[in-house]
Amino acid sequence: MPESTVTETLAKVRVVLVRPKGSGNIGSVARAMKNTGLRELALVGGGRTESLSARSMAVHARDILDGARRFGTIREAVADCGLVVGTTCRKGLYRDHVELPREMARDMVAAVAGPDAPPAALLFGPEDHGLSNADLRHCQRLVTIPSHPEQPSLNLAQAVMVCLYEIYVAATLGAPREERLKRAPAEAVEALFDRMKDTLLKVGFLDPQNPEHILLALRRVLGRAGLEERDVKILSGLFRQVEWYAQGGWEVAEEKRWQGVKLR
Amino acid sequence: MPESTVTETLAKVRVVLVRPKGSGNIGSVARAMKNTGLRELALVGGGRTESLSARSMAVHARDILDGARRFGTIREAVADCGLVVGTTCRKGLYRDHVELPREMARDMVAAVAGPDAPPAALLFGPEDHGLSNADLRHCQRLVTIPSHPEQPSLNLAQAVMVCLYEIYVAATLGAPREERLKRAPAEAVEALFDRMKDTLLKVGFLDPQNPEHILLALRRVLGRAGLEERDVKILSGLFRQVEWYAQGGWEVAEEKRWQGVKLR
Repeated sequence: MPESTVTETLAKVRVVLVRPKGSGNIGSVARAMKNTGLRELALVGGGRTESLSARSMAVHARDILDGARRFGTIREAVADCGLVVGTTCRKGLYRDHVELPREMARDMVAAVAGPDAPPAALLFGPEDHGLSNADLRHCQRLVTIPSHPEQPSLNLAQAVMVCLYEIYVAATLGAPREERLKRAPAEAVEALFDRMKDTLLKVGFLDPQNPEHILLALRRVLGRAGLEERDVKILSGLFRQVEWYAQGGWEVAEEKRWQGVKLR
Repeated sequence: MPESTVTETLAKVRVVLVRPKGSGNIGSVARAMKNTGLRELALVGGGRTESLSARSMAVHARDILDGARRFGTIREAVADCGLVVGTTCRKGLYRDHVELPREMARDMVAAVAGPDAPPAALLFGPEDHGLSNADLRHCQRLVTIPSHPEQPSLNLAQAVMVCLYEIYVAATLGAPREERLKRAPAEAVEALFDRMKDTLLKVGFLDPQNPEHILLALRRVLGRAGLEERDVKILSGLFRQVEWYAQGGWEVAEEKRWQGVKLR
């Protein structure tokens, strides 16, 4: 890629820190972003950027700290993003299909390449426990940094550095290719999941006590696929139709079918 | 490589910190080493490992701090090593032919593999100026972490993390790996599409004259995702439930809901 394109591409990768605790870590993350040409830092649920330790760890990246945007929820922080990737170090329920940073980086660069591509987001959880299962629901894909089983948990800023390094390498040294998939904005996909949940609760497919359990499996499948706007429209239409049919539209439909037969 | 061999291989990679200034950084380096299965830390020309900040940054890697060996010169620190690699971020005289961490990692793992191979050393300079030309004389090869020209200098511990991550990946994932997705048999997926088509015709979502048109879009999405057996079960269950609900199960469900209310 030409240098100007690389700059534009990297500028569309957003780092989202979810409930970060240490402000020194936020400073180190800002520095890692500057080291790799990133600009957009988003903080969800807190995080101090004014503290001495944040600013001293950031060194020459204080502009990134100053420009950091704050959000109340992950959903708002990634609303305009196409690809949304979460990082996790734990394995377990809902956490299968994790990818390596290298694969993720290649796909993320492809996803943001081109002037019309939406931004992408890379989420990191709090230092002690990482992203929760509720946080991970917003992620289409999950990435885990390979690490030794004896001490698998990386320092937050170091984990960010590894991922951004891979993204930088993919953007500057990887073969340029635009992703063929034009992902719909995350907010449109979230609205689809809202509708799916409503409909599937109504028809009794989801357990009202724990609707997210099965819904997450559906999120994972559709997340792996990647949804374009047309896909979102079709799937929204599908669930709208099921709901209409289930809520008495059923009888109207029967009548219509019957009338149809009569008219012939 | 079998796991025991990986452990032995990684144990032969030595991290050498030359004149490190911040003891917090030494702690972070120890943690990064533990994250990637390394054990041997060497300090040349100083470096405090007893300080509170070193120990708190090390977290569970205090044994690596305690086992760190101190040397007066680089020559002594690498005396028994085969391959000696220096890290540098500056370009310039004596610093051409720098390699990428990925190439270095692959060669370093190859260099220490096998029971008779000597250890290898990876050198990092002080936080402010990096390794001097005099330091670099001891290095057979040089590595530079790719970084953005606007702010090319990485934090010491983050630079160590990137290099050790590459070494860990080269040692553990070098061999071709199996696809992580365990796809369901094609026949099971076809049966799912049969059921989908039936249900979606019944609720009036598909055009009976041309049901395949929209169905193909759904096939594309699920084909991109790749379905495992569990995914097929969940999706089959979803359409079975919609069908049950739509075919009068609706009334039963209403009644049940009503009875439920009455019983309370």
